[in-house]
Amino acid sequence: MNTSSPETVACPTQRIEAFSDGVFAIAITLLILEIKVPHLHGDEAGQLGGALLRLWPSYVAYLLSFVMIGIYWANHHYIFRFYRRTNHLFNLLNAFFLMCIAFLPFPTAVLAEYIADPQAGHTAIRFYALGLLLPAVGWFAIWLYASTGYRLIDPRLSPSFVNSLTRQYLLSNLLYVIAVAASWWNGRVSLAICVGLTLLYLGPPKEPGYR
Amino acid sequence: MNTSSPETVACPTQRIEAFSDGVFAIAITLLILEIKVPHLHGDEAGQLGGALLRLWPSYVAYLLSFVMIGIYWANHHYIFRFYRRTNHLFNLLNAFFLMCIAFLPFPTAVLAEYIADPQAGHTAIRFYALGLLLPAVGWFAIWLYASTGYRLIDPRLSPSFVNSLTRQYLLSNLLYVIAVAASWWNGRVSLAICVGLTLLYLGPPKEPGYR
Amino acid sequence: MNTSSPETVACPTQRIEAFSDGVFAIAITLLILEIKVPHLHGDEAGQLGGALLRLWPSYVAYLLSFVMIGIYWANHHYIFRFYRRTNHLFNLLNAFFLMCIAFLPFPTAVLAEYIADPQAGHTAIRFYALGLLLPAVGWFAIWLYASTGYRLIDPRLSPSFVNSLTRQYLLSNLLYVIAVAASWWNGRVSLAICVGLTLLYLGPPKEPGYR
Amino acid sequence: MNTSSPETVACPTQRIEAFSDGVFAIAITLLILEIKVPHLHGDEAGQLGGALLRLWPSYVAYLLSFVMIGIYWANHHYIFRFYRRTNHLFNLLNAFFLMCIAFLPFPTAVLAEYIADPQAGHTAIRFYALGLLLPAVGWFAIWLYASTGYRLIDPRLSPSFVNSLTRQYLLSNLLYVIAVAASWWNGRVSLAICVGLTLLYLGPPKEPGYR
Repeated sequence: MNTSSPETVACPTQRIEAFSDGVFAIAITLLILEIKVPHLHGDEAGQLGGALLRLWPSYVAYLLSFVMIGIYWANHHYIFRFYRRTNHLFNLLNAFFLMCIAFLPFPTAVLAEYIADPQAGHTAIRFYALGLLLPAVGWFAIWLYASTGYRLIDPRLSPSFVNSLTRQYLLSNLLYVIAVAASWWNGRVSLAICVGLTLLYLGPPKEPGYR
Repeated sequence: MNTSSPETVACPTQRIEAFSDGVFAIAITLLILEIKVPHLHGDEAGQLGGALLRLWPSYVAYLLSFVMIGIYWANHHYIFRFYRRTNHLFNLLNAFFLMCIAFLPFPTAVLAEYIADPQAGHTAIRFYALGLLLPAVGWFAIWLYASTGYRLIDPRLSPSFVNSLTRQYLLSNLLYVIAVAASWWNGRVSLAICVGLTLLYLGPPKEPGYR
Repeated sequence: MNTSSPETVACPTQRIEAFSDGVFAIAITLLILEIKVPHLHGDEAGQLGGALLRLWPSYVAYLLSFVMIGIYWANHHYIFRFYRRTNHLFNLLNAFFLMCIAFLPFPTAVLAEYIADPQAGHTAIRFYALGLLLPAVGWFAIWLYASTGYRLIDPRLSPSFVNSLTRQYLLSNLLYVIAVAASWWNGRVSLAICVGLTLLYLGPPKEPGYR
Repeated sequence: MNTSSPETVACPTQRIEAFSDGVFAIAITLLILEIKVPHLHGDEAGQLGGALLRLWPSYVAYLLSFVMIGIYWANHHYIFRFYRRTNHLFNLLNAFFLMCIAFLPFPTAVLAEYIADPQAGHTAIRFYALGLLLPAVGWFAIWLYASTGYRLIDPRLSPSFVNSLTRQYLLSNLLYVIAVAASWWNGRVSLAICVGLTLLYLGPPKEPGYR
């Protein structure tokens, strides 16, 4: 995008990273707005403690989505070290990915409201798994586009390292698809896959391999 | 604004760009707060899937406005490369433009709530088209002020390139005016113009021409 | 705050400015969340146009507060050029000022909801004038603390320039106090003072005078 | 995290600080969204002044939490000067701490709604004290991890200074635990401990001691 400008551009991904960081920070902090204060009237007020405890699905959903967005933020910084150039399609793919991150507070709120409902719980879990699948798809699309034929990534990265990331992101996508599908059969299994993937990504990122 | 200070100012537009980026990132992320979790009671809960599907206007409006703000963000960076100086009126015009960007979540929410309503749909589309016209007007005003007689833009830009941007922004404004007017006659045509313009702007920005 | 660290600090106000900019950008963008989509049911939907027009107090309040916060942002950058050092009390005063800026969306929403109400209008205007007085007091306190005896400001600034800013900020405070007081007598006069002050501050900032 | 990259990293904590600053600035500014405009109908509108005064718990809670987050922001900058390196666990602990900061608007809103309720007041205070204990625990965990055996902190810091910070953070945690416990016995004492700790932290930070 800047290649035709007479100026030399020291860090071509700096602006897109700053904007992405903004969206990450805002989306992660907005999550709390989806937890609503319980409104108790008259004598009910004495049961505020119980009402706050019954909000546990909201706390769990807040925790899950906060960790998920936090992981994407960390991974975004991790992987943007490898991108040497950007182009128009790369920017569009990154914007699509951010749109999915910024969408996450909504499925989080749906999960929080209906996870404990015997009739709607599995639907809420399916919607949340879909909400996690979307950014995973966006993330994978960015990586595939940038890494195919070393289009935008650091040419010093070793092919085996590049391939290992491709496999890892493909596997994540498959597991989220399975989580979505599993929700028709068993909501708990679906949720367990989502939580398990999040826990897996809490580990340290892969050491980059250079040739 | 900084010209009278003893210090030399390396990048006169840096602060205004950082502030603008903040407003872009926040407005784009706030869009999700306008999508409300459907509240179903008792037996209705079993229909959560249907209720989430019936929110499709909210998803479409979210998508449209996210892409629109994202495009403005990208274009803001694209065009600020050409601005060599700023002055007080330039800053005021940029503030007016940002005010219109920050306003966009509201017409987006109106569109989402009423687009499928047989009686109110065309009004909601008109309000949304107006919501898109406003930042387009602000954008055009900044450009006209900065480019007239090369007041604030890079003197190396070729007149034909400057004129081509002027024509392009004028045309956008005219098309949004037509979209607003068309809503009295046919809401779908109005919305199609809005969506079409957004799709057009998804293309790569014009290569700058230097003399 | 950093003076005892072994490192030299190039720009002592950089971090506090970045944080302040964040609060400005977020507060200014949150204003839109206080405008609520009118909920019309059944046949009422046909009157969406009228309902959107009747929200004019919300649009006016949005405009007023957006411009006000934008002016404070611009002035914050203008004046922070003159601050050469910071200290703990300076940081506390700046935090108090930011707290008043971040509070502004609330009196803005109160003004929007009640300005047209014959019984509550003057109360809403008084509350809004108070909401504008608060950051003006905070601003004045920062300046007084930093400028008295050139405690934290650039020693090259001429005394006449320093005094002219002191007089200007004192006058603003007095006028907001008058606006608050006037609301008991005549709401329109009170609002006119608030709007008038905002318009005055839209002008270019004073040229700094150096000795 | 960046140690294996061929590039030298000038400031290893810069990115995590920028992200943290974003969360601080957003959480502190979102607090205002928890104060809701009182909706008065018909003749009630004349009592807007009284309704705004009766929101005093919201103003007090806003003030308390704004100051609390502001103090954490200032302390975050103060202490990040001492961190020379980061690692994966350090980043996770910082993310946990930020999650607790971003959670604070919720207990603040609970406190504001129920503090004056004779039946629910003590529960709301307990929940708020818990909301303050959580970031204090996160803060202490980061410090303990980074300072034990000078794992990540500046080796030039004197052991006595490191120990004095450890004691201070441990004491804060104990006092918040006492505040939570006291709420079963006397809500006012509990709240007084919370407010007292906040006032204590308003003082200037300890001068760092170097060996």
